[in-house]
Amino acid sequence: MTGTDKTRALVLIADGTEEMEAVITIDVLVRAGIEVTIANTNPSESSAESIKCSRGVRIVPDTHLSALPLPTPADPDTSFYYDVLMIPGGGPGAQTMAASTLVHQWVHAHYSKPGVLLAAVCAGPTVLKAAGVAKGAQVTSHPSVRDQLKDYFEYRDDVKGSEIVVKDEKAQLLTSRGPGSTFELALRIVEELKGKEVMESVRGPMMFP
Amino acid sequence: MTGTDKTRALVLIADGTEEMEAVITIDVLVRAGIEVTIANTNPSESSAESIKCSRGVRIVPDTHLSALPLPTPADPDTSFYYDVLMIPGGGPGAQTMAASTLVHQWVHAHYSKPGVLLAAVCAGPTVLKAAGVAKGAQVTSHPSVRDQLKDYFEYRDDVKGSEIVVKDEKAQLLTSRGPGSTFELALRIVEELKGKEVMESVRGPMMFP
Ligand SMILES: [Cu+]
Repeated sequence: MTGTDKTRALVLIADGTEEMEAVITIDVLVRAGIEVTIANTNPSESSAESIKCSRGVRIVPDTHLSALPLPTPADPDTSFYYDVLMIPGGGPGAQTMAASTLVHQWVHAHYSKPGVLLAAVCAGPTVLKAAGVAKGAQVTSHPSVRDQLKDYFEYRDDVKGSEIVVKDEKAQLLTSRGPGSTFELALRIVEELKGKEVMESVRGPMMFP
Repeated sequence: MTGTDKTRALVLIADGTEEMEAVITIDVLVRAGIEVTIANTNPSESSAESIKCSRGVRIVPDTHLSALPLPTPADPDTSFYYDVLMIPGGGPGAQTMAASTLVHQWVHAHYSKPGVLLAAVCAGPTVLKAAGVAKGAQVTSHPSVRDQLKDYFEYRDDVKGSEIVVKDEKAQLLTSRGPGSTFELALRIVEELKGKEVMESVRGPMMFP
């Protein structure tokens, strides 16, 4: 899909990222055979080796985002694109990403590339707005950031049950509401990228109620 | 409950621990105002600063288990006990803990202390068996380790829905099946330690489907 055989995901994290939203997504995607890169998006002058997430869990990123080659439409080599770019919530983490020009560039590049998914959960969709992509797309989020999003997106309120993951077909964008719906979001990413059969083979052994 | 006002949890991790099971538990407990210590149980000669979990997420522990004071019944100071000792799954992580004499000592100490909870998910209950506690207790686990457990515990097969967390009252032991039921286990720990109202105040904002 992106010039390599391997399906690849890029998950952005920063200090204050919601650790469940990041880790559930990463783990479920790895279970589906997707190669996941965890990128630190803290301002690059901050040199800490681990990210301190919203409830104190410290995660070691694979790389800083600034160390990855930013794909551009002019470049004939499309192998720098990921198949999905995922933005977890956690207010302070999302604020750091929303303020980062580099994150805006990565979001733009992947939004503009046909066949590439964007995914965001909880406060994550605020980063899409800050990057200026997907205006008018159908989106949901954690209710705590609804008011920041409702005039920019076509906001979907109170989605529940099987509707808890919102897809905007045109923007190739998946969004959901919080840690409690991140399994659903991650499994939906798997289904979009690898098909329903793979998704079900990943879901079964996780032992949902 | 244990000599301090603060409710405290000890979560054991090792290389190969299931990262969702650890992180969901830690995060949900912190949301409930519980102080969580994440202890490295790798053989202490291994000096890596981070734990490499089952799907590649690297987590920085708060301490090595050997650096914490092991509570003993003879000690009049009960402040070394935690209110809950939690063992996540992930086969290789659970095997490391099952082979650790130090982990056995910690499990024994907390099992023997009235008012203290044990919790285990997925392959975690194999560590309880290895430590020689809770024989005959009602337990569930991931089906992949059922055969290791069914003669030692009173094994509960195929628990689902609202039954997916199994409590043994006598052993003060909570068990569940996998990453997909770890939210339920963590919320049950919160309910046992802090009451139903706190549990519900934590569950709501996580936005379950
Ligand atoms: Cu969140």
